Amino acid sequence: MVLIGTLGHSRLIDQLAASGRIDVAPIRGKWESYTIQTVRNPAPGIREALVIAGSDKRGTIFGIYDLSQNIGVSPWYWWADVPVVRRERVRVAYGRYFQGEPAVRYRGIFLNNEAPCLSAWTAEKFGGMNSTFYTKVFELLLRLRANYLWPAMWNNAFNEDDPRNGLLADEYGIVMGTSHHEPMNRAHREWTSRRPGNGEWNYVTNRPAVQQFFREGAKRSRDRELLVTMGMRGDGDVALEGTGGIKSDIALLETIITDQRRFLREETGKPIEDIPQVWVLFTEVQKYYDAGLELPDDITLMFADDNVGYLRRLPTAEERAARKGGFGIYHHMDMNGGPYSYKWINTNPLPKIWEQMNLALEYGADRIWITNIGDLKPLEIPIEFFLTMAWDPKAVAKENIGGWTAIWAAREFGPEHAKEIAALVSRYAKYNGWRKPEQLEPDTYSLENFNEAERVLALWSDLEARAEAINDRLPESHRAAYYQLVLHPIRGCGNLTALLVAAARNRRFAQQGRASTNLEAAETKRLFARAHEIRDYYNHALSGGKWNHLMDQTYIGYFNWYQPVQDIPPAVSELDLNDEARFGVAIDGSAKAWPGYYLPPALPVLDSLNRQSSWIEVFPRGKRQAEISVKPSDPWIVLRETRAFSVSTSDRRYAVEIDWAKLPPGRTTGSIKVSDGSVTVADGVVSANVSVAVTAVRASPQEEAAASGAWGALTGPFSIPASAYERNVPRNGVRWEAIPDYGRVDAAMSIFPVDAASPPSPTDAPRLEYPIFVGESGEWTFDLVTAPTLMVDPDRPLSLALWIDDAAPQIVTVFTPENRASEEFLGEAHDINARTDMRIMRFKVPIASSGRHVLTVAMVDPTIVLQTIIAYRGTLPASYFGPPGRKIPTSRLASKGER
Amino acid sequence: MVLIGTLGHSRLIDQLAASGRIDVAPIRGKWESYTIQTVRNPAPGIREALVIAGSDKRGTIFGIYDLSQNIGVSPWYWWADVPVVRRERVRVAYGRYFQGEPAVRYRGIFLNNEAPCLSAWTAEKFGGMNSTFYTKVFELLLRLRANYLWPAMWNNAFNEDDPRNGLLADEYGIVMGTSHHEPMNRAHREWTSRRPGNGEWNYVTNRPAVQQFFREGAKRSRDRELLVTMGMRGDGDVALEGTGGIKSDIALLETIITDQRRFLREETGKPIEDIPQVWVLFTEVQKYYDAGLELPDDITLMFADDNVGYLRRLPTAEERAARKGGFGIYHHMDMNGGPYSYKWINTNPLPKIWEQMNLALEYGADRIWITNIGDLKPLEIPIEFFLTMAWDPKAVAKENIGGWTAIWAAREFGPEHAKEIAALVSRYAKYNGWRKPEQLEPDTYSLENFNEAERVLALWSDLEARAEAINDRLPESHRAAYYQLVLHPIRGCGNLTALLVAAARNRRFAQQGRASTNLEAAETKRLFARAHEIRDYYNHALSGGKWNHLMDQTYIGYFNWYQPVQDIPPAVSELDLNDEARFGVAIDGSAKAWPGYYLPPALPVLDSLNRQSSWIEVFPRGKRQAEISVKPSDPWIVLRETRAFSVSTSDRRYAVEIDWAKLPPGRTTGSIKVSDGSVTVADGVVSANVSVAVTAVRASPQEEAAASGAWGALTGPFSIPASAYERNVPRNGVRWEAIPDYGRVDAAMSIFPVDAASPPSPTDAPRLEYPIFVGESGEWTFDLVTAPTLMVDPDRPLSLALWIDDAAPQIVTVFTPENRASEEFLGEAHDINARTDMRIMRFKVPIASSGRHVLTVAMVDPTIVLQTIIAYRGTLPASYFGPPGRKIPTSRLASKGER
Repeated sequence: MVLIGTLGHSRLIDQLAASGRIDVAPIRGKWESYTIQTVRNPAPGIREALVIAGSDKRGTIFGIYDLSQNIGVSPWYWWADVPVVRRERVRVAYGRYFQGEPAVRYRGIFLNNEAPCLSAWTAEKFGGMNSTFYTKVFELLLRLRANYLWPAMWNNAFNEDDPRNGLLADEYGIVMGTSHHEPMNRAHREWTSRRPGNGEWNYVTNRPAVQQFFREGAKRSRDRELLVTMGMRGDGDVALEGTGGIKSDIALLETIITDQRRFLREETGKPIEDIPQVWVLFTEVQKYYDAGLELPDDITLMFADDNVGYLRRLPTAEERAARKGGFGIYHHMDMNGGPYSYKWINTNPLPKIWEQMNLALEYGADRIWITNIGDLKPLEIPIEFFLTMAWDPKAVAKENIGGWTAIWAAREFGPEHAKEIAALVSRYAKYNGWRKPEQLEPDTYSLENFNEAERVLALWSDLEARAEAINDRLPESHRAAYYQLVLHPIRGCGNLTALLVAAARNRRFAQQGRASTNLEAAETKRLFARAHEIRDYYNHALSGGKWNHLMDQTYIGYFNWYQPVQDIPPAVSELDLNDEARFGVAIDGSAKAWPGYYLPPALPVLDSLNRQSSWIEVFPRGKRQAEISVKPSDPWIVLRETRAFSVSTSDRRYAVEIDWAKLPPGRTTGSIKVSDGSVTVADGVVSANVSVAVTAVRASPQEEAAASGAWGALTGPFSIPASAYERNVPRNGVRWEAIPDYGRVDAAMSIFPVDAASPPSPTDAPRLEYPIFVGESGEWTFDLVTAPTLMVDPDRPLSLALWIDDAAPQIVTVFTPENRASEEFLGEAHDINARTDMRIMRFKVPIASSGRHVLTVAMVDPTIVLQTIIAYRGTLPASYFGPPGRKIPTSRLASKGER
Repeated sequence: MVLIGTLGHSRLIDQLAASGRIDVAPIRGKWESYTIQTVRNPAPGIREALVIAGSDKRGTIFGIYDLSQNIGVSPWYWWADVPVVRRERVRVAYGRYFQGEPAVRYRGIFLNNEAPCLSAWTAEKFGGMNSTFYTKVFELLLRLRANYLWPAMWNNAFNEDDPRNGLLADEYGIVMGTSHHEPMNRAHREWTSRRPGNGEWNYVTNRPAVQQFFREGAKRSRDRELLVTMGMRGDGDVALEGTGGIKSDIALLETIITDQRRFLREETGKPIEDIPQVWVLFTEVQKYYDAGLELPDDITLMFADDNVGYLRRLPTAEERAARKGGFGIYHHMDMNGGPYSYKWINTNPLPKIWEQMNLALEYGADRIWITNIGDLKPLEIPIEFFLTMAWDPKAVAKENIGGWTAIWAAREFGPEHAKEIAALVSRYAKYNGWRKPEQLEPDTYSLENFNEAERVLALWSDLEARAEAINDRLPESHRAAYYQLVLHPIRGCGNLTALLVAAARNRRFAQQGRASTNLEAAETKRLFARAHEIRDYYNHALSGGKWNHLMDQTYIGYFNWYQPVQDIPPAVSELDLNDEARFGVAIDGSAKAWPGYYLPPALPVLDSLNRQSSWIEVFPRGKRQAEISVKPSDPWIVLRETRAFSVSTSDRRYAVEIDWAKLPPGRTTGSIKVSDGSVTVADGVVSANVSVAVTAVRASPQEEAAASGAWGALTGPFSIPASAYERNVPRNGVRWEAIPDYGRVDAAMSIFPVDAASPPSPTDAPRLEYPIFVGESGEWTFDLVTAPTLMVDPDRPLSLALWIDDAAPQIVTVFTPENRASEEFLGEAHDINARTDMRIMRFKVPIASSGRHVLTVAMVDPTIVLQTIIAYRGTLPASYFGPPGRKIPTSRLASKGER
């Protein structure tokens, strides 16, 4: 027997409480709280029962769904085909469970950017965005313990498309809002389908008609639970039509809001303070607030992110004290517009959501959280994470995001593969976070430097292989859920990366005159076709076509920020090969090939401290394969033949390693001769012999000892993961803490508490110390790769300090008065940072002597997320990530204590 | 009977002269002069004879070849397979012809950048660059009245590859030089094949060996006619290895030249003044001269161009007075190196050669002219023009370049088609001069603005059709010559333009989601294959394979400045088309397509003064063709359906014209609706209706009268050809004169005499006046498009003046101290200008009122070649050439004298 009811609404529950058989004190009068208790003899003839009692309607509902989830029903059982495992028996431990108030009062999602996918899917499956569709959404929200919804709006009017939509929302207990640009609970579509008065959506030129439109919104929602969007923007999600100056615009907006509040009072008969209202500072709207617009303090002020998940603003202590209505957040996991659109797939790593939404919590923006989730699918995981964090942040502490994901995976797929599946879904989102798929291009990852494209592709290939392996092991019953939640995004994104890298190789190989150019063209076409096969499986085969159209979104061939009408495959070249046996040579670190380029080929300098390897590739240029000899000039150059990074097995790679034992300390040069045995022909451009210069630098025993265990190199750039500090020194309870699995690294470092005051001096601040070894003295550049977090405190630019050894700290600041316009939302620097999902804080520091040093990074401001430190002299070879970390192995000398 | 001999070397000729039967007074003691005279009874038993007498050996040779050419033997009979028409009878008019001295003493060519073509061809046909090959070159040079040769040098040593090379050159009368970086008549290859001493080509570190090498060069050439290259550059056509500072470098160079002169004296036994010597200011060498290097005044100083035909420097009056050895010019018609390589085809319009080499003549650089002609073929025409101009500039006055070309065409192909053939060869070189083929890319010509790509492609198509028509009419005997001299470059370059424009359409159409994207991909591949068919015909079929390898040069897919190893076809995309009947709309003036782009489509504003038309294109996006209706909103919008600029006939263009009679004066807006009759689907991105805004501006009768016959428009940018002046006002014998067929226009304007002094004030200067009409007042920009001529007078930057009506002249100067480094050879601006073959002098001028005005351009400095004036407000839409000229027709009102 399960007894369910709401305090004050269920006689049975109230009686059980009154008689003390259930304890409701912890939840009484609370918002959306509930208790689950076992009770003996709750009523005559009933030996024992499980009681679910809510403090209010949604409290009770959440209690029910809590039980439902605990007995094995995923919130996504319908929305992601997660099978409900039938159980013969469910055991409940005797006891009492109390669920307190949620951290955030209103928690919701925004169905937006709903074409081409959601609109076509709902049209096919439901006949439109009617109540049959929306009750599916309501149920999902409630199972995810959300309570708030902005409905689809591009070409929809929630209340008019189906009059039952609004009624059922209220019955289900979902608080309906309207999006940031649709005030007074009316869809903009309701306006455009009528265009009353002179038709203009303009409070100056068509005021009576707009006022009447507002009044009708207030009236219609009179008997429902409300959260009213206030203010006004332009005609259809564009900026307000200006009145000629910011002052008169502000006056107009103040008039509009005053009028709207009057209509609400008059039409609902309620005191205005009893009607929750929100004003959303989206895009240009924030400027009115910044310029001093006066807003009644019972209205919730909702700050927006920068459309890619970084908060633009948070309340100051003064604002928090002054605003009874509190503060909310409008967040994006999907976007159509600036800085660029991303609508295809999940690109939202959970640690990033955590880091920013934790700021919202800590800075007191906790009245409303809403996130734009596009078509809803395929953002299942970040949606649940976001709503979980809004409900109970403690469940997703930063150290436990992976743990939460594993619990999620176990719930959906059982415990056996939970950890691996959690790793898979974290990984694909992490990789997508580096650069959203829509923004990837063939040249995003460097083919020539640091083997970058090759390494990124290997990450995806590995992920795909692991995902396929799990798929093979899962029971058939779970494969549909697995496809949509795990396998599809990994296949799709892995395939996209492979496609773009193949296209990059095609272009590069064409330039190098490789015969395999044509195979790469074919590979590019094959992978483009595969992209559509992966899409088509989702649309047509998955769950018998249940999700048709939800993968209609184009994502290949974006134009800067906006989508193509059809996926555009990367362009490819096909060479007209000669019937000859010429060969060419390409080398690590260069896009060029020889014979052909006028400067002679030289490999990057190899360094004994890091024992890196390098490579050359030898390939046919004509239709026939040449007999090639590849010979090092000296025995210290060791070659190992393997496959080239090419689809052609005729392209051969010779890994170049150094037999350091054969070299004296210092710099030694040699070469690798590639020849087909023919005589050099007479022209100065094409010859049949190529000699690639090889330079190796061996550390002296002293250098080796000094470098042991440090980050650095004898030569060339290097990087240090921020979490690889040797010492982490806190000050006054403020410290650098790791955010695991963040961004480009295994863990990023950030300051906690997140609102800590700046220390009096960097030398007296929380700091991180790194041992480094540099082979050359002189000016060094240290690029501190941080997350592109914005200046959430309007009075506090973001600074970091850095110094070497005991030198004076250098401070670099972003959001200085000079640079702020560029670095803020939609500025030039923001545009770049939003695409690379990082910002560089660049320090130029003299290092007086080569050898071992201590690099210190110290706090000046919090809300900076430090990922990597890239160190170099002069110009850094172009790449997306910079050089790999180079930690010098602990030397035998050092380990013998000879240092 | 033809009697031939040289004065002082032939007893018979001397006797005829002594007896007064021939008159040799005009040529005696002259350089390379000759006379051709008919003589009665020159000797007993001989009734009459034709006598050819030369003032010296080459004078006699030139006389012989003059006769040869006059009786129908082209200088190119072997080198371009021009048939020698067999004549039964040749008639000679009685009389005496005297040919005086050439304008330039040494006139020659440089066989350079000789791979892959010349080297492979000579290897196959001659077994190397031996005397069998070189005597063919000598004969050609003599027939072209040249006397000087720099032999191939990349991997050749003229004197060592075949010891008869040098002997035969001297016998033929060819003065052998060595290239600018090969001093003392020794090939650099002679050094690199031996590397004596320590092997370094360095006068500091390996002086004795280098000195011995120099001595041997002097010794070997002792008994031959010499012109010795002096000085020293680096090891193989690179800069001199510096000694640490320009002063010590100069001292070293002075030492080298002093030593070289000593070796010449010692090894030849001649006074140094009797040995012609040249020092070439190539690339970096000029800086030593500019910095004050002291050069004995009997050495000829050879200035170089900027590798693309513009002279970097000419002698000043002081220098001319001081240098007994005079000045020469090193010119390029072919280049391997900076600013970019061009080695495939003839890209040298004759008017450009004339303009620059005329400066050389007028500024007294007339001792030596040498031009780098790559593989020799296919530069037949500019080579002959250059050598003709050096021989007799009067034969090629600027007004007669077309006439000279017609004479050339008549000589090679007979008189019937001569004018047309002359037009064809002038045209293709002119078009190639706009931008050299190697520098063309798919986006060079704008697809969206001013119908530019379409217009350029139409020019080539027209040329190709005309060239094919002549080919069909020529007798078989002349077709081989016609192919190599006329048809091949036109086919090849026309095909290249078509190829790149198809690739551009492929990219653009992919972005627009046109189904025809895939047809454009196929077209691109077809045209790439055709490029190689055209090449292969030249190499394998033409004249039975006689010219195999001479078209081996790659030219498609250049990397900035250097060539690919293989031609790289432009990359293409192929869409994965859906099985649907969607359509899209593209419009004039935009790269975008609808549905799909978020801003609504609007055509460029149409203007009644110019009666331009515009267009929209409607195309299928899926596999099926939709039923489309295209309807104007108003009867004043007139549509005419035609083919789109696409290979697909399914893509339709609707030319948009305005029925001006239906419009009132002023601005009127309407639209064109494109619809497939379906209902707009619910998504905000894709809809099945597109409405293109059309705006037309009709002039008032007053405006029409004011604008009549002027250049301009009511709205939008316009251009004026420089030669379309209304008044050309000379001052003090200095005037603007037209150079017909120059650059981007029918005729460019330049100041003559070319060394005229600057007038005291622009208002008192030679000037050009243009009537203009502007529809809007405010700041206007006037871009004066000039040739990218350089600052040949080191003391004289280049300035022009411009003003409106009676406003104060504005002066714009290039080569100011601030900009000179950028504008000079290999500077940043030079790099751009050398590719676009133009320079813009930008004036920003306020125009107080709309309406008719007079635009005046006045001389400040000569040696500027003005082509076009582009006028616009704000930003000019991107294109290669700017807007077409817009001359407003003479209005009926104006013609009635109502103005």
